Amino acid sequence: MRFRFATVCSPPDELTTEVHLAASRITKAVIAAAGSGTRFLPATKAIPKEMIPLIDRPIIQYLVEELSASGIEDVVFVSRWDKKVLEDHFDQHPTLEDSLAASGKARYLEETRRPGELVNVAYIRQRGPYGNGTPALNAAPLLGDQPFVYAFGDDLVSSDVPFTRQLIDQYRKTPGVILGAQEVPRSEVPNYGMIEVDDDMRVTKIVEKPEPDAVTSSLVGFGRYILPPEVAVLLGEIPTGKGGELWLVDAIEAYMRQGGVVYACPVRGGRWLTTGDPVNYLEALFHYGLARDDLKDDLARMIKRLAEDL
Amino acid sequence: MRFRFATVCSPPDELTTEVHLAASRITKAVIAAAGSGTRFLPATKAIPKEMIPLIDRPIIQYLVEELSASGIEDVVFVSRWDKKVLEDHFDQHPTLEDSLAASGKARYLEETRRPGELVNVAYIRQRGPYGNGTPALNAAPLLGDQPFVYAFGDDLVSSDVPFTRQLIDQYRKTPGVILGAQEVPRSEVPNYGMIEVDDDMRVTKIVEKPEPDAVTSSLVGFGRYILPPEVAVLLGEIPTGKGGELWLVDAIEAYMRQGGVVYACPVRGGRWLTTGDPVNYLEALFHYGLARDDLKDDLARMIKRLAEDL
Repeated sequence: MRFRFATVCSPPDELTTEVHLAASRITKAVIAAAGSGTRFLPATKAIPKEMIPLIDRPIIQYLVEELSASGIEDVVFVSRWDKKVLEDHFDQHPTLEDSLAASGKARYLEETRRPGELVNVAYIRQRGPYGNGTPALNAAPLLGDQPFVYAFGDDLVSSDVPFTRQLIDQYRKTPGVILGAQEVPRSEVPNYGMIEVDDDMRVTKIVEKPEPDAVTSSLVGFGRYILPPEVAVLLGEIPTGKGGELWLVDAIEAYMRQGGVVYACPVRGGRWLTTGDPVNYLEALFHYGLARDDLKDDLARMIKRLAEDL
Repeated sequence: MRFRFATVCSPPDELTTEVHLAASRITKAVIAAAGSGTRFLPATKAIPKEMIPLIDRPIIQYLVEELSASGIEDVVFVSRWDKKVLEDHFDQHPTLEDSLAASGKARYLEETRRPGELVNVAYIRQRGPYGNGTPALNAAPLLGDQPFVYAFGDDLVSSDVPFTRQLIDQYRKTPGVILGAQEVPRSEVPNYGMIEVDDDMRVTKIVEKPEPDAVTSSLVGFGRYILPPEVAVLLGEIPTGKGGELWLVDAIEAYMRQGGVVYACPVRGGRWLTTGDPVNYLEALFHYGLARDDLKDDLARMIKRLAEDL
């Protein structure tokens, strides 16, 4: 796979009959991975939050695997000063690969090579205001005039059809902003960005961390989007918002005011797993551990034994 | 705390009446942390195995905390080319500390500072033959003519009295080699180095990964030792053994042949937790998670809920 960041989008290899679909072949993603990982200190003192493993695979690799399985070819990581290990992880590693090959450890050789084979990768250091819109603004010059996937490095989705594929399919039906979404219990409403939708899942309102009674919806918008290029442009035009930060939601609302359409895409056949705090991280660790053929029996036995003592 | 590696041992501040105890103030430890962490690939592609966290604290910090709580002042890490994050973790981190202080995150500021305050640290790159004796041989010039703690970076012990303190107490009673030990089920005997002892816990025989019927003991010797300086000298004199590697057990057997005494010190009031493979790593993760006031309730609830579905 050669680098395509500076090139125009390849001609679509299917769906050539409808003109608006020519622009909808989505092959680029931006991953916001510049967070400080405060809730995982001290583990994140010297290691980026996204590189903390769920057992033996870094959190961020689950995300990149999903992007790759969804047809994404080029990923821009927007990261910080501490991201050398991130770059090393998605690089080749000749010393280690030679050593594993020499000792005949084929499975581990494959595991070592895999991160470097999933997608093309570019790295940007985040600059500008704090806020979850800044990474998309920083990456915009590499994206061309195309819609792109925008992903937060700690939001994973485990689903039968890769979730980013579901988002792209939704974009093909309703070009515009597509928001990854999931129903949550009413009690959790105040923790999240909640989205109100009409019967067609078109978004009518986004409310950040509302009082439980302030919204009728139980639909959370989490950190996975398809964004049309207009939203990246708007991020460079709107003022910073709450707390002096540059918020993606402010750009999306500006896009709606200009007549842009925004649709929610709830996870089908799976679930959103945030790893943003230790408790949810443990939920994700159990989920992925129990899904693994080589670990599920041992882990299930452990859980049953621990449950007996609780 | 100033660096003491090049100095002689300080005079003991207690127990001055018995001459042999003057040498038994044990303040130095060597941690073998140069393993390739193959069983945790790809997570260990860019991160040393010992830096993988148990939730939010690297494995190796649990070990260093225990050493510090046992009176160890100086630690020599024997590590590899990939250990920059290890050094960063046990260093100061002014940028991060300033940022946490400015935002009033006192708890996380303390978590960030703590690894740099536990012990003095020196780093050596492992060189010479493969084998679990090589790190002690490499570190010997920094240890002076004193007994020292030798620890494998993935063997943790959770106990009421810090286990290294238990080992040091045993050394004071029976100066010589002290081996950390724990009973295991008979079925696990073939996986470990087993030790045979007399009624006083004096070691009579060490057998590496025996057939179940080849030993009467169920006592595993794991990766935590007090070693007299003579053992480090012997590591430089004995030939390499099985597989062309330099084995600590070969040096200990040479020490016994020269009349040195070796005692086992089973873990009291706690348990050995190896993190050397994913299954045992998960055991350790749940153990430490359930011991934490800020996580135990959530984790227990999660385990009970998962157990119901299994």
